Amino acid sequence: MIVVGSGGKHLEEELRKLGGSLIEVEIKKFPDGEKYVRVSGSFREVTVVQSTFVPQDEHIIELLLIADALRENGAEKLKAIVPYFAYSRQDRVTKEGEPVSVRAVMRALGIYYDELYIFDLHNPETLRFFPGKAVNLSPARAIADYFEENLGEGIVLAPDRGALMRAKAVAERLGVEYSHFEKKRISPTEVQMKPVDVDVKGKNVLIVDDIISTGGTMIKAANLLRTMGAGKVFVAATHGVFAEGAIERVSKAVDELAVTNTIPTPASRISIAPEIVRL
Amino acid sequence: MIVVGSGGKHLEEELRKLGGSLIEVEIKKFPDGEKYVRVSGSFREVTVVQSTFVPQDEHIIELLLIADALRENGAEKLKAIVPYFAYSRQDRVTKEGEPVSVRAVMRALGIYYDELYIFDLHNPETLRFFPGKAVNLSPARAIADYFEENLGEGIVLAPDRGALMRAKAVAERLGVEYSHFEKKRISPTEVQMKPVDVDVKGKNVLIVDDIISTGGTMIKAANLLRTMGAGKVFVAATHGVFAEGAIERVSKAVDELAVTNTIPTPASRISIAPEIVRL
Repeated sequence: MIVVGSGGKHLEEELRKLGGSLIEVEIKKFPDGEKYVRVSGSFREVTVVQSTFVPQDEHIIELLLIADALRENGAEKLKAIVPYFAYSRQDRVTKEGEPVSVRAVMRALGIYYDELYIFDLHNPETLRFFPGKAVNLSPARAIADYFEENLGEGIVLAPDRGALMRAKAVAERLGVEYSHFEKKRISPTEVQMKPVDVDVKGKNVLIVDDIISTGGTMIKAANLLRTMGAGKVFVAATHGVFAEGAIERVSKAVDELAVTNTIPTPASRISIAPEIVRL
Repeated sequence: MIVVGSGGKHLEEELRKLGGSLIEVEIKKFPDGEKYVRVSGSFREVTVVQSTFVPQDEHIIELLLIADALRENGAEKLKAIVPYFAYSRQDRVTKEGEPVSVRAVMRALGIYYDELYIFDLHNPETLRFFPGKAVNLSPARAIADYFEENLGEGIVLAPDRGALMRAKAVAERLGVEYSHFEKKRISPTEVQMKPVDVDVKGKNVLIVDDIISTGGTMIKAANLLRTMGAGKVFVAATHGVFAEGAIERVSKAVDELAVTNTIPTPASRISIAPEIVRL
């Protein structure tokens, strides 16, 4: 049984088509701004699908309210599927006095939820903050399937070494080469990027990352690949946390930009709904 | 040591003047909508002042982030002072499938906070949902002090029987009479209100409630008191959760409307800051 919150509404129709059993839920705001939720029916085991993009804090509180209603109605086991996890990039203290924000949210969800499923968490080590079972899901299959035909015998690249495993997962599904970009400071103000140990000449390239926000890195990488004689350049990411105008800027610089629908955006052409139903 | 969040900013200056030791805190929003907080200095015992009016959910999450930062920085004991507690009216299941929303918020705060202080909680029984020490504070002293001179030998009235103890607390501080209104259905569409066992003729009256939202009851009560020959009519409440235009409508119907500053509004002329410093 699945309950879809406001942050999962865009996945609802597809989940139903794929055979998911959806519980009806009423969600509204009172005139004073407080959320109201009400679930229909009583079930022993329920999965709540709620992505926590903007307004993040409302989506988080909604996850707690829905869970409270389900527990009140007799649920014994609750799973949360949070495709995009808010505050995931606030995963460490970089300046004294900062919180580890992702920890606070994971602990709050842990009050009600037994299991937590996230897609492509920025720092998978932060899963340990969730008191129950916590799983990081990969959208590699969905991304690979989407680009398979257009990429052909191309190359999958990660924008940096830290993202290499993500590129590898997509490349292995497609049976193609993979590598990553390397950044080299060439002057106090300039950083040069180049792909490591791989010849892109005449080859189609798919750059894969977890999050695109301004898209600056992707545009730089795409332009570089052009000068190196690459064929078509594609960009994929799990989460489209796009800054104002970023979709347009990246789209102009590449042959195709596609992100998954962990966050609903105009570029969310890759669906993670099948992965959710498989769980 | 006190930390003031976005929902306590309006109390900051007064708390400092009253001798509170305030810790500096930086609070901002990232471009993607996520909150960022950073506290200065490391303290063993800290009190966080944060009211949770609109945007309620942001103020709640901020309470968690500030607490996480303080714990990270070595705090051993954390107190939350939440003058207005969001979701306090969602205190029971009235239709099957609803959550007890106030419980979800109290449990979330309970992850980090050892003690919780609230002003005039809608249903004090819900304090039991907070796992630590939870205290309901009365603004009766502040309200009594504010109206003492103008009310004179008047009467304090509660708008209904359930609110009688609140009127009693204010009246006893002033050494004046108190009672409550009674509602009587006089036709299928009409309900008549009248004050019980008390003669308002020629007397000033102060009506005291916990929350004013539309103000409809207060206006009805005030108009009735006029027809009964009352002197001046004053209205006070702890929390001014005013609906659009309510301040103007109530102000027009009475001699003075004043609420406390648990929520900052144009009618918040009664301060609870002295009560906070006394804690």
